[in-house]
Amino acid sequence: MKRLTLRDIEAIEVGAAILGTGGGGNPYYGKLQLFEQMKKGGVVDVISLDELDDDAWVVSLGGIGAPAVSVEKIYQGEELCRAVQALERETGRKVDALISSEIGGANSMKPMLTASQLGLPIVDGDGMGRAFPEMQMTTFSIYGHQSAPSAMSDSHGNTVVFTHLIGEIWLERLARACVVQMGGTAGIAEAPMAGVFVKRFAVPGTITQAMTLGYAVKDANRDNRDPIAEICRRESGSVLFEGKIVDLERFMVAGFTRGKLQVEGVNGFSGDHATVDIQNENLIFRYNSEVRCSVPDLIVILDLETGHAITTEVLRYGQKISVLGLPCHPLLRTETALRVIGPQAFGYPEVVYRPLAEHPAHP
Amino acid sequence: MKRLTLRDIEAIEVGAAILGTGGGGNPYYGKLQLFEQMKKGGVVDVISLDELDDDAWVVSLGGIGAPAVSVEKIYQGEELCRAVQALERETGRKVDALISSEIGGANSMKPMLTASQLGLPIVDGDGMGRAFPEMQMTTFSIYGHQSAPSAMSDSHGNTVVFTHLIGEIWLERLARACVVQMGGTAGIAEAPMAGVFVKRFAVPGTITQAMTLGYAVKDANRDNRDPIAEICRRESGSVLFEGKIVDLERFMVAGFTRGKLQVEGVNGFSGDHATVDIQNENLIFRYNSEVRCSVPDLIVILDLETGHAITTEVLRYGQKISVLGLPCHPLLRTETALRVIGPQAFGYPEVVYRPLAEHPAHP
Repeated sequence: MKRLTLRDIEAIEVGAAILGTGGGGNPYYGKLQLFEQMKKGGVVDVISLDELDDDAWVVSLGGIGAPAVSVEKIYQGEELCRAVQALERETGRKVDALISSEIGGANSMKPMLTASQLGLPIVDGDGMGRAFPEMQMTTFSIYGHQSAPSAMSDSHGNTVVFTHLIGEIWLERLARACVVQMGGTAGIAEAPMAGVFVKRFAVPGTITQAMTLGYAVKDANRDNRDPIAEICRRESGSVLFEGKIVDLERFMVAGFTRGKLQVEGVNGFSGDHATVDIQNENLIFRYNSEVRCSVPDLIVILDLETGHAITTEVLRYGQKISVLGLPCHPLLRTETALRVIGPQAFGYPEVVYRPLAEHPAHP
Repeated sequence: MKRLTLRDIEAIEVGAAILGTGGGGNPYYGKLQLFEQMKKGGVVDVISLDELDDDAWVVSLGGIGAPAVSVEKIYQGEELCRAVQALERETGRKVDALISSEIGGANSMKPMLTASQLGLPIVDGDGMGRAFPEMQMTTFSIYGHQSAPSAMSDSHGNTVVFTHLIGEIWLERLARACVVQMGGTAGIAEAPMAGVFVKRFAVPGTITQAMTLGYAVKDANRDNRDPIAEICRRESGSVLFEGKIVDLERFMVAGFTRGKLQVEGVNGFSGDHATVDIQNENLIFRYNSEVRCSVPDLIVILDLETGHAITTEVLRYGQKISVLGLPCHPLLRTETALRVIGPQAFGYPEVVYRPLAEHPAHP
């Protein structure tokens, strides 16, 4: 068990934004709320998967909504407490530990805040190892967990329990329809899982991963080393492109932020062109019209100078960016997983997923 | 207590379609399902409000969706059983009796079917005395009942419980968003009410009213008397217009059937023009552009010959119709009620509700 410090939280903020691949919401507000909680004496205790009892009752949780909305409609702070409590009432059993449904972006912070508020440990791991836009896109759902009963609550206190669902996609459909009515953001806690299932199917160690990554970027900036090279080294990633944003489509549709980014190359990429397709997260990277990286691998957009992640909702014309490709966790690229989180699942029938290492390197 | 016969159900079908004011869905399918249930030995026991214990636990229920959808996507039959059972699990208490949320249209039949399936009595009354398109438009909600927890279930078995709602409009917003995902139809059962509350705020005797009205129309047709005159006499109503449908806009939007009907006068109305605005139900009747009847009073469209009601989804160009105005129950036209079910609530700021009797009679 490790108790996190304020510095650790700062580092997780930086690392989780990178793992968010543009989405998952900005972790900044969540960090501030967690700081307030810690100043009042709250603690955040992280336990590893190994420390989890096989028969512990573990709830996966996070915010649901569009990142572009979460900038203006701030998380009230107790949405997920109400959701977890509604689940406990529904199942008649106390929860033993919480785990983030997605480590990328704001959902790194919210589950830690909830764990601290409820006096529960948070498990070092998550259901995505990154961020994805839809509810059924967790390793938990992919590998057989049934999400009902799940509970969601909004900033006002409206609370909905999905007591029976005939398939994982139905949580996404119904919860998404509700969150649009709720103003675009809410918290959702999914059906409790046994510890033994979580140990096998969580993406392991991702709180530590985000924190280590964040410290590395901060240290590199402090020491005037290249933070981007540091990220690539730690995550076995590579620089896919460097350039300037010359066009940006971004709009809200059916509760999602969708859009497309056009980038003109600079430095070694001068004269070349790249695009990134977005659904909350960065989905498809094309280099001179050729797909060079796609979901489930991570497409990360960073400030070219500082190496800090730029999330979807703060992208803007003229920014100089570096686009990185980072390989996803092996749990995300099995045949079973690709049916749920591969390019086809996002509406790209023509894109065949090829792991990052199999794409040609930049000449 | 009165046990209904198949003939009674046939009469209720006719009367409920009239009280549906164009909406509430066609009761025909529900009648067939109820017949099947009765052939298997099921019974429908109707109890009057007077027979209800003050501390009985009464659940108001009905289908939710768009009438135009319900013609193609037929009620599976057990949606409301699942919803009532989910409510019982949520509250930990057995339900003593059921009451229809709206007597108009298909929601006359579905609650009787559910009552028969669950072996419960059905209360002679409802929450509207007619049909209305939205959930908060019941006398129960209007006079202070809190709808949470409410439960809804779809034809597949997906079940959602709204455990906490900060206002009655939130059930409408969230349930409507869910029903659109569910394919346009579902069943919903609302938070149990004490018998004493139901006795005071239900629109009383509306199953009997629908049945009596249905028998009157059938008898008039059999005896070659004018069924429309019979309806007006029994319901203190009047003929607002007689004409031929010359234009019909009807479309689905946000889970509702919306539209507008244009009618050219025949018989005594020759040379005149009328329109009816629709949101699932007939909302506003205009005679040569002047509002002559509006919600919450009942605007009923009947076949000019048979006196049978024509519901929104089967209106078509060329039909010869009679438009009746029937006064609503006094519980629907208090100041409190008009805020929820008056013209303003339907987006007509310019229309002042005037009870039917205060409008000029046809010259």
